[in-house]
Amino acid sequence: MTAGRRESPYVLPSSGLTYGMRRVDLNADLGESYGRWRVGHDSELLRLVSSANVACGFHAGDPLTLRDTLTIAATNGVTVGAHPGYPDLLGFGRRDIEASPAEVESWVLYQIGALRALAGAARTEVRYVKPHGALYNKAAKHPPTADAIARAVSLAGGDLVLLGLPNTEIVAAAGRAQVRAAREAFPDRNYEPDGTLTPRSNPDALVSDPDECADRAARMVLDGVVRARDGCMVEIEPDSLCVHGDGPEAVPVLRAIRQRLEQSGVTIAPFA
Amino acid sequence: MTAGRRESPYVLPSSGLTYGMRRVDLNADLGESYGRWRVGHDSELLRLVSSANVACGFHAGDPLTLRDTLTIAATNGVTVGAHPGYPDLLGFGRRDIEASPAEVESWVLYQIGALRALAGAARTEVRYVKPHGALYNKAAKHPPTADAIARAVSLAGGDLVLLGLPNTEIVAAAGRAQVRAAREAFPDRNYEPDGTLTPRSNPDALVSDPDECADRAARMVLDGVVRARDGCMVEIEPDSLCVHGDGPEAVPVLRAIRQRLEQSGVTIAPFA
Amino acid sequence: MTAGRRESPYVLPSSGLTYGMRRVDLNADLGESYGRWRVGHDSELLRLVSSANVACGFHAGDPLTLRDTLTIAATNGVTVGAHPGYPDLLGFGRRDIEASPAEVESWVLYQIGALRALAGAARTEVRYVKPHGALYNKAAKHPPTADAIARAVSLAGGDLVLLGLPNTEIVAAAGRAQVRAAREAFPDRNYEPDGTLTPRSNPDALVSDPDECADRAARMVLDGVVRARDGCMVEIEPDSLCVHGDGPEAVPVLRAIRQRLEQSGVTIAPFA
Amino acid sequence: MTAGRRESPYVLPSSGLTYGMRRVDLNADLGESYGRWRVGHDSELLRLVSSANVACGFHAGDPLTLRDTLTIAATNGVTVGAHPGYPDLLGFGRRDIEASPAEVESWVLYQIGALRALAGAARTEVRYVKPHGALYNKAAKHPPTADAIARAVSLAGGDLVLLGLPNTEIVAAAGRAQVRAAREAFPDRNYEPDGTLTPRSNPDALVSDPDECADRAARMVLDGVVRARDGCMVEIEPDSLCVHGDGPEAVPVLRAIRQRLEQSGVTIAPFA
Repeated sequence: MTAGRRESPYVLPSSGLTYGMRRVDLNADLGESYGRWRVGHDSELLRLVSSANVACGFHAGDPLTLRDTLTIAATNGVTVGAHPGYPDLLGFGRRDIEASPAEVESWVLYQIGALRALAGAARTEVRYVKPHGALYNKAAKHPPTADAIARAVSLAGGDLVLLGLPNTEIVAAAGRAQVRAAREAFPDRNYEPDGTLTPRSNPDALVSDPDECADRAARMVLDGVVRARDGCMVEIEPDSLCVHGDGPEAVPVLRAIRQRLEQSGVTIAPFA
Repeated sequence: MTAGRRESPYVLPSSGLTYGMRRVDLNADLGESYGRWRVGHDSELLRLVSSANVACGFHAGDPLTLRDTLTIAATNGVTVGAHPGYPDLLGFGRRDIEASPAEVESWVLYQIGALRALAGAARTEVRYVKPHGALYNKAAKHPPTADAIARAVSLAGGDLVLLGLPNTEIVAAAGRAQVRAAREAFPDRNYEPDGTLTPRSNPDALVSDPDECADRAARMVLDGVVRARDGCMVEIEPDSLCVHGDGPEAVPVLRAIRQRLEQSGVTIAPFA
Repeated sequence: MTAGRRESPYVLPSSGLTYGMRRVDLNADLGESYGRWRVGHDSELLRLVSSANVACGFHAGDPLTLRDTLTIAATNGVTVGAHPGYPDLLGFGRRDIEASPAEVESWVLYQIGALRALAGAARTEVRYVKPHGALYNKAAKHPPTADAIARAVSLAGGDLVLLGLPNTEIVAAAGRAQVRAAREAFPDRNYEPDGTLTPRSNPDALVSDPDECADRAARMVLDGVVRARDGCMVEIEPDSLCVHGDGPEAVPVLRAIRQRLEQSGVTIAPFA
Repeated sequence: MTAGRRESPYVLPSSGLTYGMRRVDLNADLGESYGRWRVGHDSELLRLVSSANVACGFHAGDPLTLRDTLTIAATNGVTVGAHPGYPDLLGFGRRDIEASPAEVESWVLYQIGALRALAGAARTEVRYVKPHGALYNKAAKHPPTADAIARAVSLAGGDLVLLGLPNTEIVAAAGRAQVRAAREAFPDRNYEPDGTLTPRSNPDALVSDPDECADRAARMVLDGVVRARDGCMVEIEPDSLCVHGDGPEAVPVLRAIRQRLEQSGVTIAPFA
C-alpha cells in the first residue's frame, strides 16, 4: 500500500466541475442467485451500472441464472466481466480457503471460460475479470494468489482487463503477467488514511446514506480524492466505482450516484 | 431406432481387409477424478486412444485434474472433447435428474466453455462434445433434451462435432441444429438386434474379454457390422469406437483393440 | 388414490360449528435458507404455526440456520419435524432424481439424525418426519420409495410420526413399517375430484386469497370436506393443515387461517 | 505443548515387557468413499482396528457408504467414532477454511447426529468423536475452534469421548466442556522433540516401513515413549494408536503393528 496521506492541493471545492475526470464506470456484482434462492436486484441494477461483475457458479450463480443476467446485460448495453470466486456456496465465497496457486489459477480459468460460453449465447462477451469476496481480498495482499489470478486472465486470452483495488498486489501481478489492470473505488465504503478500505469488522465500514455516497462518488471522480475516516484526504483515481448490489439500499444508492455524476457532467461509460 | 436387422450382404469373411473402413477413432472417458478421489487410468489410456472425452466438473473432474489431463492429452497428440454431465457428483452423472431444456442447454454451454479455457492453457482445444452418462442416455431418446444439447454445441461455436449413438435422437437433433455429428460404437458392450445397446441391467451387457473386444472392434470397422445378442448381424458404421475407461480391464481391452486394428491395417486417428 | 367423489351427506352449512373436529395442527416448511441466501419468513411463521417442518441440509438449510430455526421454534413452543429432501441444492429438492430404495433410506436416516442432534442443542426434539418436495411426491405414488422412507423413520426410533398426503402410498408404507402416520391437507392448494392435489403445472393449482384459504381451512376442519375444482365435495380428515411458507402471501394466508379457526372454536395444537 | 524433552529414566530396554501398559486401542479413518469414488481399504482395515473413525459426509462419506461401513464395523465388533470434518468435498477436509465457532459447533453437531442415526440402523452406536484433517489441526492449536468442538460433543450427549492429540488445545477444551478426552499417538508419523508431529511438509514426516512402525508402536505402548527426529525420547501415554488408512502401506503397517503388540502381550481393545 503506497497511497499517500495528505491534504491534496488538487482538492477543489464543490464547484470542482471544471477539473478532474469526466468519465467513469459504475460496476456492481450481479447474477448471484442460485437455483431457487434469489438475491440482489439484477433487473434494476442493470439499468444503472455500465459494467456488471457476473458470478461464475463457484460462490453463486447457476448457469441458467447467469445466462439470464447476461442476456439482460446485453439488452441494456452493459459491459460484462467475470466475477470468479472460491468454490464455496455455503460461504458465498466470502471466507478464505487454503488453496495452492495452481488451484487458484485453474479455478479462475474454469470460471472465465464457463461465463464466456454463456456470454456468447447471450450475444455479449466477457471483457474483464474481477475476483470475488475472499479471493479479491487475498489477491490484494498475497502475491502468489495475485499472480495465479493474473496468469489465469492472461491464459484466457482476449485482452481481458483485471479490475482490482489500486496499490495492491493484484495490480502489481497484472503488470507481471502483462495484463491490463483497471482500478476501482468504493463510494459506499469508508477508507483508512493509507488508502485501504476500513475492514468490515469495523462498525464504520459502510456508508449507507445515498446522498453521502453520491457526494463521495463525485469527489472521487471530479477531485480524485476520498475523505478517510480520520478526515484526511486520500488521493484516488478510479477507473470504476463499485456499489455493492446486495444491500437493501443498493438501488437508491446507485441511483443517487448516477444522478449526481450525470448532473456534474460526468459520462458513465464502461472502462473495458 | 431404425437400424435394420439382417444378414448383411456386405458382411465379409475375416479376410475383409480389402474392403471397409481403413480409419477409425478410439475414444475413452478421462479426467474423472475429483480432488483427492482418483479414478481411471488416465496416463495409460492417453497412450492408447486418439480422442479423450474429458469431464467438465459437473459429474466429475475438478479444474486442476482437468488441466492435468488436458496437458497429458496435448503432449500425446490426443484430440480433446468435452464430456458434460448432469450436476451430480454424488451420482457421478449416472442417474437421470429432471431438468428443463433451458437448464440442460445452459449446463452444457457452461461446461464446454469451462473446459475450453483450461484446454487453451494446456495448448490444445476442444474439438467435439460427447454427453456423459444419464445425459447421454436421455439425449438418445428424448428429443427436447437432445435439441438442448445440440443448441448448446451450436451456440458454443468453433465447429464442434457432437459424438453420439447412431440412429438416436441426439444425431437427429444435431441435424436440426446444423451441427456435425459423429457416430460411435462400443466393442465392449453387447447389442440388441435393433442396434441399441443391451441395457446394463442385463447380465450380458458387457463384453470384458480383451480378445473378444478386439474381434468385435475389427468387424465393426472392417465389415461394418456387429453380432447382436441373438446372433444376427447389425450394420454399423462407426466414426469412433468407445472403450470404457474405468473398469479394471480398460487398459488391456484398449490395448488389444488397438493392436488388432493396427495389425489389420486400420489407422487410428481422431474423427474431429 | 381411493378418496371417494360425492356430495357428502355429512357436509354441513356454514353453521357447522357444533360438529366436526375441534382441534387441528398448522404446519409450514421452515429453515430453508442456505448460507447467505435467505428465504421464507421464519420468525413470523413460527408465531403462527404449531408444527415446523425443518429442512435438514440436503435441499436447503445449513446447520447454523437450522439451529437458529430450531431455537426459535423451541422458544415459541412449536413442535419440530424433520423435512428431509433429495441431495440437490441447485434443484431445491423439487425435481425427481433416480435413487435406489437403499439410498433413499440412508439419506432420510442421515437427515433425521442430523436434525435431531441440532434439536437437542436447541432444547427441543424431532417429533415427526415429512418428506420434502420431489421426495414427498415420489413417496405418494411409488411404493419402494415410500417403504424406504417409512423404514428410515422406523429405524430412527423415538416414535416419530410420518406426515403425508392421505390415501397415498406413504401412508400405506407407514402401516407396513408400523410407523404412525398423520394426514395433512392444503388450504392453499386446489383439489381434484379424486382427492389428489391439482398439479402445479395447472394454472389453478394454487389458492392465494387469504380469505378463501381461511374458508377452505374451516370447512376442512369443521366439516371434513374440501370443494374440488369441479365443485364436488371431497371428504378429508386432516390432522394438520399445511401452508406453503415461501410465497409472498404466506404470512397473511396463515394469519387468516389461524384467526378463522380460532374464531370458530378450533384449537390449534401439534398433532405429534 | 508441554511435553518434556529428556532421556526418560523410565525408558526400558527392549525387554520392557513386564512394565508399561498392557492394553491399547488401534484406530483408523474409514468410510471415506463418496458415491462412485472409492478410497481406502475398509473391509481389510476393519479386521485389524479396534476403533473406526467414520467420516460423516462433509469431507467424505455418502450416507450409503457410511451405513455399509458401520455395518461391517458392527459385524467385526469394532467400536465406532464420528469423524467430522469441514464441509469441503473438493479439499477432502484437508485445508483450513475460515469458520466462526458457532459454525464449527453446529457443523460438528450435525455430523455426529447424522452418523448416530446411521449407526443405530447398523445396530451399533457412536462412542467417540475425532475431528478430521484441517479441523483436527485447527482444534489442536486454536482454542475457540477447540471449544466449539468440545461443546458440540457435550451437547450431543451420550457420554461421547473426544479423541485428540495429547497436550493440545482440544484436550484442554474437553476439560472445560466436561467431556472425557482420550489421547492418541501415531506410529507412522515422526515426532519433534517437543512432542508435536513433524509437519507433513517435511520429507521425514512419515514412517512407512511396517517393521519400524511396529517397533515404534511397541515402545509407545510398553515404554511410554517415542524417539523424536533428533533421537531424544519423548514421553507419551497413548490411549489409542492411529494408523492412516489411505496409503498403499496401510494394511501391512497395521498388520505388523497388531501382530507385534499381540506378541508382546498387549491387548488390543477399544478405549471408549
